Amino acid sequence: MKAIETIRWDDDTSSIVLIDQTMLPLSYRVVRCRTVDRLITAIRRLEVRGAPALGVAGAYGAALAAGTVKEKEFPRYLEKVETAARAIAHARPTAVNLSWGVQRVLSRINRSGSIAEARLLSLKEAHRVAEEDSRSCHAIGDHGSTLIADGSTVLTHCNAGALACREWGTALGIIRSAIESGKEVKVIACETRPLLQGARLTAWELKRDNIGVTVIPDSAAASLMRSGGIDCVVVGADRITHDAVFNKVGTYMHAICARAHSLPFYVAAPLSTFDPVHGSSEIVIEERDRDEVAFYGGHATVPEGVPVRNPAFDATPLELVSAIVSESGVHRPPLDWDEIARTRRVI
Amino acid sequence: MKAIETIRWDDDTSSIVLIDQTMLPLSYRVVRCRTVDRLITAIRRLEVRGAPALGVAGAYGAALAAGTVKEKEFPRYLEKVETAARAIAHARPTAVNLSWGVQRVLSRINRSGSIAEARLLSLKEAHRVAEEDSRSCHAIGDHGSTLIADGSTVLTHCNAGALACREWGTALGIIRSAIESGKEVKVIACETRPLLQGARLTAWELKRDNIGVTVIPDSAAASLMRSGGIDCVVVGADRITHDAVFNKVGTYMHAICARAHSLPFYVAAPLSTFDPVHGSSEIVIEERDRDEVAFYGGHATVPEGVPVRNPAFDATPLELVSAIVSESGVHRPPLDWDEIARTRRVI
Repeated sequence: MKAIETIRWDDDTSSIVLIDQTMLPLSYRVVRCRTVDRLITAIRRLEVRGAPALGVAGAYGAALAAGTVKEKEFPRYLEKVETAARAIAHARPTAVNLSWGVQRVLSRINRSGSIAEARLLSLKEAHRVAEEDSRSCHAIGDHGSTLIADGSTVLTHCNAGALACREWGTALGIIRSAIESGKEVKVIACETRPLLQGARLTAWELKRDNIGVTVIPDSAAASLMRSGGIDCVVVGADRITHDAVFNKVGTYMHAICARAHSLPFYVAAPLSTFDPVHGSSEIVIEERDRDEVAFYGGHATVPEGVPVRNPAFDATPLELVSAIVSESGVHRPPLDWDEIARTRRVI
Repeated sequence: MKAIETIRWDDDTSSIVLIDQTMLPLSYRVVRCRTVDRLITAIRRLEVRGAPALGVAGAYGAALAAGTVKEKEFPRYLEKVETAARAIAHARPTAVNLSWGVQRVLSRINRSGSIAEARLLSLKEAHRVAEEDSRSCHAIGDHGSTLIADGSTVLTHCNAGALACREWGTALGIIRSAIESGKEVKVIACETRPLLQGARLTAWELKRDNIGVTVIPDSAAASLMRSGGIDCVVVGADRITHDAVFNKVGTYMHAICARAHSLPFYVAAPLSTFDPVHGSSEIVIEERDRDEVAFYGGHATVPEGVPVRNPAFDATPLELVSAIVSESGVHRPPLDWDEIARTRRVI
């Protein structure tokens, strides 16, 4: 079966082509972003989401900015490209990969000597980011699959799959690699309120690849752990700081419950997700729109006038994490940040 | 403001009148059950739900059976009433109050000497059950409000409010009594997937009574606890055995997270919820329909063919419970079952 192509550059139309993840599983539709504004809309609307995919989107977005800014005078061209690229980087605040992808390409643009060179180099660098993402996911899969016993049932939250990356996935990359290596693995996908990325996206892509998956409400995970129905938890990450893993809201509660039932709790993320600079208290947790929780299919599920809290992410202290799997291997907390910083540069 | 009347007997039409809880908060509609079959449908569809309200529904249901069975020969009449009443008791398996309410009235019917007497006594006993439920809720409120500090923010799950009882509520009864006694109390209502009783019902009835309430996805509770936004957890119960509290799925995870953050975890339930007979391993956890999780407003949220687990309840071990509040007082585990059995009889 053809691999899922979550995000790619289309040379013919000089645009970024995305699978529209807001429409799955009802319909499979691709979106074509020919402008930076359209890409920002896609990022904000979560047509493309998932930390590694946002890294690729940021990289191609900066290249799109380089290709579409009309200015002819080089220094002013650079300024305008930078402004456009920064707008992409700020479209969502929590996942570090988005600004990392933008920065990767922007620094290449800034080292070029002409508009033509900036356009050429930016696209080349964006392709490199995309290819690295694929290689990272497969390496994460290979490293992580050693942690998964044959016959395991793995609980996952949200979607850290092919749809969260260029392809293959991080958490689901580990599942795919384990299965490819001959193990039997079943997945329990938490539906992941409010936007149901687990029910809609994880279930869709695993079913497509004939991997056994069962969907549960997020709140049913703990009792399933207690009854022995879960062997370990594997999730992705949007940012990993010195002291915490930022990931989809609900991750923290699964980590607490995994610890309470003595189950391993694994995080799968490329090195681009690691943030060596900030502490967890400095990270902005994106608060999304009330209507994501308060409406469904146009119907109010919360009475009018009642306030809603809708944080997109939470922070899981590293003490609750058994291991983080990156493309460079299996890291067990406490993390060796010097080694991570070295590997991050080399890769 | 007039109190919420969740369930009542209507003398003029000899029927049970319910607030249809499947329609809130979109519309306020009452349902009239003139037959046992219609009542069973109402219970199965969750038009009426919540353990204490189910106790009242069971009691009035048995009285409805006594009033509607057409048989003229007394022993055969009793048989038919018993069959109809048993069908009500089995409409949902987990909440013990339903069969308890049925049994309360049935034993009175069985001690009567004629059809006319059975009809009279059954309705009288059902009214007594309903009135006791109100008294229990207010007593639970009074006992429980001593546990709530002035200025508290209380997390609750599902709906253990007026809509889960005849009126006032158990968990929300404690909130109402605390506020009535002059304390300031705010409520965080977990939306409670899949049927959103927290978002729809708890938010609706608290807003109606001008009590401050904010709705969150179930999965956001743990991080709110960590950030200091919660002072204690108060939930209801569907059955309390020697070793566990059965309540809406998600309760167990909140109990684990409350313990992890050193927050008190309180359960509010009338003595009719206590089950002195069974151990938790004997209790059937109702598995409800796939579509409750997999569809919303007619749209598929889970891809076709992907299985779903939808347990309605989970079991929280008593070790995680700080106290259970009943109409007879505040019980701290380990429970004194002899005392509970004595009080249960006396009340």
